[in-house]
Amino acid sequence: METIASPLETQKLCASWRAAGLKIGLVPTMGYLHAGHESLIVKALAESDRVVVSIFVNPTQFGPKEDLDKYPRDFQRDQSLCRSLGVSLIFAPSPDDMYPAGFATKVAVPSMAATLCGRNRPNHFDGVCLVCSKLFNVVGPRKAYFGLKDAQQYFVLARMVRDLNLDLELVPCPTVREPDGLALSSRNAYLNEAERKAATVLSRALDRAKGAALGGQRDPKALIDLIAATVAEEPLARLEYAQVVATGDLADVSADLSTIDGEILVAAALWLGQTRLIDNFLFTPPEARR
Amino acid sequence: METIASPLETQKLCASWRAAGLKIGLVPTMGYLHAGHESLIVKALAESDRVVVSIFVNPTQFGPKEDLDKYPRDFQRDQSLCRSLGVSLIFAPSPDDMYPAGFATKVAVPSMAATLCGRNRPNHFDGVCLVCSKLFNVVGPRKAYFGLKDAQQYFVLARMVRDLNLDLELVPCPTVREPDGLALSSRNAYLNEAERKAATVLSRALDRAKGAALGGQRDPKALIDLIAATVAEEPLARLEYAQVVATGDLADVSADLSTIDGEILVAAALWLGQTRLIDNFLFTPPEARR
Repeated sequence: METIASPLETQKLCASWRAAGLKIGLVPTMGYLHAGHESLIVKALAESDRVVVSIFVNPTQFGPKEDLDKYPRDFQRDQSLCRSLGVSLIFAPSPDDMYPAGFATKVAVPSMAATLCGRNRPNHFDGVCLVCSKLFNVVGPRKAYFGLKDAQQYFVLARMVRDLNLDLELVPCPTVREPDGLALSSRNAYLNEAERKAATVLSRALDRAKGAALGGQRDPKALIDLIAATVAEEPLARLEYAQVVATGDLADVSADLSTIDGEILVAAALWLGQTRLIDNFLFTPPEARR
Repeated sequence: METIASPLETQKLCASWRAAGLKIGLVPTMGYLHAGHESLIVKALAESDRVVVSIFVNPTQFGPKEDLDKYPRDFQRDQSLCRSLGVSLIFAPSPDDMYPAGFATKVAVPSMAATLCGRNRPNHFDGVCLVCSKLFNVVGPRKAYFGLKDAQQYFVLARMVRDLNLDLELVPCPTVREPDGLALSSRNAYLNEAERKAATVLSRALDRAKGAALGGQRDPKALIDLIAATVAEEPLARLEYAQVVATGDLADVSADLSTIDGEILVAAALWLGQTRLIDNFLFTPPEARR
């Protein structure tokens, strides 16, 4: 396994693989890899000739008051995991490698970036679009793997890939969870013991809403209220948002769910002390399927 | 020679060429081809195994009051020219092929888009970045050819290509001119006889400024004043701007030119009736070379 910091050197190596007819799978990460990332890497390994894992804590997707500096890092552990899994290349650039002096370009999907998590993280998805544009261009993957825990990220990037005619497939992968339901996230490391226990309220709230939807509840407001009521039962948790949106454009769904076309995303974010957690589920009303 | 409207079909054909080891040259155009375009195509043919000419009057780079509807078009003549030159493929999508319902992505270099022509065409270079991102991703060229008559376009795109790690080379090509100095442009077709005669004032003004720079004039304001004074001699012409900028970031240069690093762009735009013409020259003060 190689580890390369230089975008140009990575681009040349990946181009040589493509020229040899090899299919590249890319798993973009911010490092501090957990079993969620591992599931993406395993899937990529099964579908590709070469797997590239990028490890880059991307400054442009953090707000000025967010946790860029304290974001957890353990590069050696990440390297060991990637090596043991059979990854071909870790692309691990520095911020200066990615954004050298004079950098001036923006890539964004503004209409899908201002809702859900974007309401409190106004530049986050612009940063995600920018860094993923660069990663896709450096690596030239046939497929890139994203976890659905970050569902908005996936749908924004899917829009970007389609709109910009990027010649690759985004592969959405199921959220990996702790036995008690908590979605895996590098940020779970921030939680103290009491917060860790309380954190299960998020998946529990979404599970209740999903159960209600499966049971026939078609009023999006009722699903949101159910999430809010469940989170309110946990004194340590503060709900940031719960929303029901269409996955195509992430527009809020206020109509009866049996009248809509296609899939909805039910997503929520909450705070436990200084830690922000997100989770979601996807649902397609059977009677509303196109 | 093939003509294809579908981005996906074009992408597949170009991918098959690359897989066969063939180098693709791309000449992006809005059609109504003239000898300037022809010079780009000839250069591309000399350096590539397959040449793709895109013909697309891109709505996103026109302002609401600009000449999108009346922009000159002659697809059959363009086809004949491309065929006779040896072009492999004309990519000629419709606006709906390029921007289908739900399209939502933006690509831009805002800091370089607001100056020069961007002062009066605020969304123009965002549209250029967006369409060229798409064209580059559809065609996957090794090299893409741009005329330096549109110098700002070239420098904005060069920044974008570098920033986004696009794996291609932009090739700047010299402006092609009429015998009397007028830079070729599809928009020259708008000029009536008197305007056509008057139009030479633009290259004459820039030639005088270039002569002054070559003769030792190092005050950017003096160059601008010389352009303005020359244009003022032509009653039909109205100067929109004359500027001296650094080519790296297109920032205005107000310092003595012998103290700056690298290359400057001296550019001007003027109006003749309803027609807007642009022209420019590049200059590197010999004593200021890095």
